[in-house]
Amino acid sequence: MAHKAAKENRTKLLLDEKDIPRRWYNIQADLKTPAPAVLHPGTGKPIGPQDLAPLFPMALIQQEVSRERWIAIPDEIRDVYRLWRPSPLYRARRLERVLDTPARIYYKYEGVSPAGSHKPNTAVAQAYYNRKERVARIATETGAGQWGSALAMACNFFGLQCKVYMVKVSYQQKPYRRVMMETWGAQVVPSPSPDTQAGKKVLQQDPDSPGSLGIAISEAVEDAATRDDTKYSLGSVLNHVLMHQTVIGLEAKKQLEKADDEADMVIGCAGGGSNFAGLSFPFAADKLAGRKKNLRIIAVEPSACPSLTKGKYVYDFGDTVGLTPLVKMHTLGHSFVPPPLHAGGLRYHGMAPLVSKLYDEGVIEAVAVPQVATFQAALQFARTEGIIPAPESAHAIRVVIDEALRCKAEDKKQTILFNLSGHGHFDLGAYDAFLTGRLQDYEYPAQKIDAALRGLPKVRG
Amino acid sequence: MAHKAAKENRTKLLLDEKDIPRRWYNIQADLKTPAPAVLHPGTGKPIGPQDLAPLFPMALIQQEVSRERWIAIPDEIRDVYRLWRPSPLYRARRLERVLDTPARIYYKYEGVSPAGSHKPNTAVAQAYYNRKERVARIATETGAGQWGSALAMACNFFGLQCKVYMVKVSYQQKPYRRVMMETWGAQVVPSPSPDTQAGKKVLQQDPDSPGSLGIAISEAVEDAATRDDTKYSLGSVLNHVLMHQTVIGLEAKKQLEKADDEADMVIGCAGGGSNFAGLSFPFAADKLAGRKKNLRIIAVEPSACPSLTKGKYVYDFGDTVGLTPLVKMHTLGHSFVPPPLHAGGLRYHGMAPLVSKLYDEGVIEAVAVPQVATFQAALQFARTEGIIPAPESAHAIRVVIDEALRCKAEDKKQTILFNLSGHGHFDLGAYDAFLTGRLQDYEYPAQKIDAALRGLPKVRG
Repeated sequence: MAHKAAKENRTKLLLDEKDIPRRWYNIQADLKTPAPAVLHPGTGKPIGPQDLAPLFPMALIQQEVSRERWIAIPDEIRDVYRLWRPSPLYRARRLERVLDTPARIYYKYEGVSPAGSHKPNTAVAQAYYNRKERVARIATETGAGQWGSALAMACNFFGLQCKVYMVKVSYQQKPYRRVMMETWGAQVVPSPSPDTQAGKKVLQQDPDSPGSLGIAISEAVEDAATRDDTKYSLGSVLNHVLMHQTVIGLEAKKQLEKADDEADMVIGCAGGGSNFAGLSFPFAADKLAGRKKNLRIIAVEPSACPSLTKGKYVYDFGDTVGLTPLVKMHTLGHSFVPPPLHAGGLRYHGMAPLVSKLYDEGVIEAVAVPQVATFQAALQFARTEGIIPAPESAHAIRVVIDEALRCKAEDKKQTILFNLSGHGHFDLGAYDAFLTGRLQDYEYPAQKIDAALRGLPKVRG
Repeated sequence: MAHKAAKENRTKLLLDEKDIPRRWYNIQADLKTPAPAVLHPGTGKPIGPQDLAPLFPMALIQQEVSRERWIAIPDEIRDVYRLWRPSPLYRARRLERVLDTPARIYYKYEGVSPAGSHKPNTAVAQAYYNRKERVARIATETGAGQWGSALAMACNFFGLQCKVYMVKVSYQQKPYRRVMMETWGAQVVPSPSPDTQAGKKVLQQDPDSPGSLGIAISEAVEDAATRDDTKYSLGSVLNHVLMHQTVIGLEAKKQLEKADDEADMVIGCAGGGSNFAGLSFPFAADKLAGRKKNLRIIAVEPSACPSLTKGKYVYDFGDTVGLTPLVKMHTLGHSFVPPPLHAGGLRYHGMAPLVSKLYDEGVIEAVAVPQVATFQAALQFARTEGIIPAPESAHAIRVVIDEALRCKAEDKKQTILFNLSGHGHFDLGAYDAFLTGRLQDYEYPAQKIDAALRGLPKVRG
């Protein structure tokens, strides 16, 4: 029965709707030591549920700190998941052939969601719990627009209003992402906006400010904190967000079983950490339990924004301005502004606390890759497998190809699984830059990172 | 066992890869009378295979005139189909609920192909047969870019060079579609181009010409006719193109069987006719054979370019300039230039000869719908089902919603099946125009059509 899929020459491994997971996997149940507490930015003491209540519904706050291994997925959420889940698991036969590798390469494709990425897996859950606690409206920020469009769609399904503060430079440069959000009924404003005190303050100092994710977060948080009918929503980093994404890895495990195969390597790109965690945590569970000691789990980040490979594992703010609670994570310093990489979803100074902890404990590895080599991998993938990957996902592909070539050099028949977290339909400007030789690599911004690390908050972790 | 899917609350009906059809359905085998001959534009006499040999490989010329009911799909083509086929059949439960209709609505979703539409179903087949006959290079034209990107991808898979003459105004306004083609390795030039005599001639008269599909066809045909290593490829209208698309309807029939359901209505938008034919011809077979007499098959066209509902069923040129053979079809006159509808794929003066013949014989119906009402339907669909439809596909959705509301008024539990031929990720500019109230309806261009019909070639049909 070994490698049945190989024998049958199957390209896609599909599951039925009844196989959509009924429970999310919460890795906090399996950590050797509990995750470090989240601290109040003023007092430096651990915060409680009530401190977060103005921003999040209680169900999500409870999920954030829960140590239950499995959390049931409500039927109303699974009903929306059915629109695109279970997502297909592909065997990358054409890529394997071109690389002439003995490795077997599989990818989980999350670009099949209507928003085009994995983000709706948590957006739908967050909209549902907000609706259940009678929240009427959600405020959020978005950079390039992946998260904003996922939340716009989810809010639309549950009858919630949605306001998106979109970084002004993206608002101007990526009008299609804005229109996508508006098509699903969201209100989108360029940030900094005159709609908040935070936005007004920035506009007074610089009317032409291009905005930043940090400013947009400040606006969305202020919006939620100052309106009774409104909560705030975040698309990555937090524990409950990562947990919602574990449907990816839970499905992938079933699909690999159907193929009578087992992963030797699990690879994902990592910005805030949610797509990486979504695929890898259900596999990490086996490693943590001692069932799969040799499994390699690899997070891939841009070499110009390398929070895992070059950052410190310390307490820091989640936002740029310094308004959020303090979390212990791998960080380049909250004041570090990454260079204008095309993989907008990987331009974040920190890394999800749970991903950071697993890295610190040696459960997972991390690799940083430069931009041009990443697009070379993206092109090779598009020309063999057809799908044009998002620049974020292409970071994972770079390492997949490198590992497959290593397998060739070492004549090893290993199985590589990675997350193709989204398609690149709204990123073709970046492909154009690459194809015309205008794409560049950024040097490791050592001085800027050193300066940002000197500005870390002084807290004992 | 009736309506098992309804009981199980299934949203998607999936098939396994082994269920990808092994044969295309050729409706020419089941026509009451043979399709009218194609005529030489100079002599007015029927043309033979050798007349077409400079433009097409012999296998496709044979398929064009074949009266075999089933034509085997080579394994090499099915192997590429596996990348996205079988495509899912969705039950539009959320749309049904919002319409409060007793009708059951299903849609076949072809936007899952890497190029985002049904076009690769024939592009892959055409690239394969060209490659098999040792053609090194294919030339084609594209308007908005759906066809060009499908052929670029297909040529890339089979190691063929691909040159796309892209209507200049689209080349400038839709750079992402161009980049998509280049990502798959195609050479794309704005048409009119200095690369052909036809292009040079236009540029001499008007250096700023925005181009047209007619000019681009002339350039691609000239390119193929004047180079030994090159053939020409067309994305719709021709018999073999329609036949390749029947994989859509063949799969949909199996999927409806799995749902224990049967279509009362089959609906598709129709520009050149290929996505409409692809879904509907396998169902039309049952009607032609007397097995399903009450089945309604409806082609939907824009009211500003209504070749079926307002055109004449006569011999006309396939292109605007008048270089192609003459085919008998419903036409508005080859010199008719449709208004700048956002559904670029429906801006064609004629209709596929096979679709025209079935309409003439009363096997199928046709309905014309205006642009604004079409986008209203598109928005309702996006907000209930999630997927943002291509403007072309939205024409079908308009009629689906109208028919579902009729079912409600008449309290009839009918089953409606339609083809969601592609997604609208590259058409969000049109959605923006609609959402901001800038979208307009075009009046029926009666005078322009009358003038074009007076210019029809004088041939006895």
